[in-house]
Amino acid sequence: MVTEVEVRKALEGVMDPELHKSLIELGMVRQVRTEDGRVEITLALTTLACPLKDQIVGNVKAAVGALEAVGDVAVELTEMTDEEKRHIGIGVPEKGAVEDLNVIRRVIAVMSGKGGVGKSLVSGLLAMALRQAGHQVGILDADITGPSIPKMFFPDGAKLGMSPLGPMPPKSRTGIQVMSINLLLEQEDQAVIWRGPLVSGAIKQFWGDIFWGTLDYLVVDLPPGTSDASLTVMQSLPMSGIVLVSSPQDLAGMVVRKAANMARQMQTPILGLIENMSYFECPDTGKRHDIFGPSHAEETARRIGVPFLGRLPLDPEIARLCDAGRIEDYVSEIFSPIAQDLARRAPEAQRSTFMQMHAGQQ
Amino acid sequence: MVTEVEVRKALEGVMDPELHKSLIELGMVRQVRTEDGRVEITLALTTLACPLKDQIVGNVKAAVGALEAVGDVAVELTEMTDEEKRHIGIGVPEKGAVEDLNVIRRVIAVMSGKGGVGKSLVSGLLAMALRQAGHQVGILDADITGPSIPKMFFPDGAKLGMSPLGPMPPKSRTGIQVMSINLLLEQEDQAVIWRGPLVSGAIKQFWGDIFWGTLDYLVVDLPPGTSDASLTVMQSLPMSGIVLVSSPQDLAGMVVRKAANMARQMQTPILGLIENMSYFECPDTGKRHDIFGPSHAEETARRIGVPFLGRLPLDPEIARLCDAGRIEDYVSEIFSPIAQDLARRAPEAQRSTFMQMHAGQQ
Repeated sequence: MVTEVEVRKALEGVMDPELHKSLIELGMVRQVRTEDGRVEITLALTTLACPLKDQIVGNVKAAVGALEAVGDVAVELTEMTDEEKRHIGIGVPEKGAVEDLNVIRRVIAVMSGKGGVGKSLVSGLLAMALRQAGHQVGILDADITGPSIPKMFFPDGAKLGMSPLGPMPPKSRTGIQVMSINLLLEQEDQAVIWRGPLVSGAIKQFWGDIFWGTLDYLVVDLPPGTSDASLTVMQSLPMSGIVLVSSPQDLAGMVVRKAANMARQMQTPILGLIENMSYFECPDTGKRHDIFGPSHAEETARRIGVPFLGRLPLDPEIARLCDAGRIEDYVSEIFSPIAQDLARRAPEAQRSTFMQMHAGQQ
Repeated sequence: MVTEVEVRKALEGVMDPELHKSLIELGMVRQVRTEDGRVEITLALTTLACPLKDQIVGNVKAAVGALEAVGDVAVELTEMTDEEKRHIGIGVPEKGAVEDLNVIRRVIAVMSGKGGVGKSLVSGLLAMALRQAGHQVGILDADITGPSIPKMFFPDGAKLGMSPLGPMPPKSRTGIQVMSINLLLEQEDQAVIWRGPLVSGAIKQFWGDIFWGTLDYLVVDLPPGTSDASLTVMQSLPMSGIVLVSSPQDLAGMVVRKAANMARQMQTPILGLIENMSYFECPDTGKRHDIFGPSHAEETARRIGVPFLGRLPLDPEIARLCDAGRIEDYVSEIFSPIAQDLARRAPEAQRSTFMQMHAGQQ
């Protein structure tokens, strides 16, 4: 007969792959029941959306299954309380200094996984279209090491504003609020050589320590990849959903599917997929050239199972206006219907913590 | 008169901005000398290339300078020993399992800061040109969350090989060895949702736990950004130098300058700058279109103070071949002279640890 003590002893050897401590030490083992050869274990994970969940369960089953006299191991999963999480020093950050003063109705993150497909451009165009429709709009530039947004919106640079309630994002010509690490640097080309925890910390501050006031939409421009910045945004911000941006290349499609898989695992809704750099229309001949190869975006959207929202062309005029800080002068007839479509699909923020937090204010 | 005890007490309040512990606790305060109003402090940093060095010194001066009877504070910097670093659990990883069996003569990292400017393409073309010149060449795909290299080189996918000496990178059609996280995934579009430490760990394993054998050149394809992956490569691998890749947009130039500033701070030589996606030559009219705006790359190279190595056009044929896993069928007359130029500029690996490590073998 196996005992609870033996099981707990075996679990001392199973590490959380991210926290590098044993499940026992982390207090994740809620309950152990043994009956004849059967062992039932209840584990409290930091989050049920934990991408390494299967690995942890596998390791637990292997470690306990290796004990003599153990036939069957069942693992039930639950989630740690906020208190427990704080105790082991993760998640559930203290609320930001002015977080309670902000009312942010919808948070839409623009993501790709792949770099350089035009996430910042789509973020900018989306914010512009929503603003034109009369909404209060902000952009949170979550690309800490390669921020593009300020350069697109502020021809003469911009600085963080100050108010009695806290630091305020500067407003663009048409009234879009922008927060980016580059507003805090003395020179725009200073390198921000930070490892993940500092990157995550900055994003959380942009959310909770900045006085945004009331926003109908906050557009979050994510950096490439499925590492710290994306994780932090999906875990810590009350997401309405994400927009995926792809380019025609199949290679880009593969990386975008990774991003989609991440969103799925984090239980963040995907609002749809936009293809950027779809084609170049030669001004001399009017002919369309598939510079990045034939489009795979519709196929990618179908494979992921999300709406295909539309295509954007390669347009030298966009590059010119972005470089000049005058993206707001760009008239995109193509993007407006896409933005309206997106706005319709984005539900108001629904995560419980957020709703509780703002319940008294709305 | 201020005493050493008072100074050390004051330093207990100064935190290492990356390790989140006090300099005292980390054992960084080597020596404190006081004489009249003057205090001289010797700090041992984890690395003299520490990007936050100035901030640490500033904080030390502020904390000690605030003590009564202190007039002048001088801070001298030195580096921790490997032993000391291991003691606080950072840097100096244990040597990889087969690291001593590999002889890797030159390590060239391809970097941009910005995503989607063609780092992977340049990495591939560089490896191909070096291979054609008769060298033994490998590519280490350091983009853990958005790997592109395997798809470019292996039309039918590829798997890690096995040898008595350790896991071996698969070889491409022309004999280029390739290591990438995607060789380890069951499905190429699986998301790798890892925070920085896991990303860094994977890169270190690709370097030290993989049996590369003897390579004349290892090309490292870096992900965008100046965070964990870039830091780990620059800190842990014996770099010959980095190649910067930019695109014509001024916005890309700004982010590339960030990458250059990082390399400077990490004391990694920059071999030169390549502009990708420079122009599109219309097949019908032969006219060149500046699709991403007029080029700023020469200006960027001049501002950074590095050689400008050349321009690559936007070519639909490249996109097509990359998507088909047949990049090696691409004939780039433009790239060969660039690669030769680069090879000439890349010195053999010189970092002391590496030389010591391999001294007995060469």
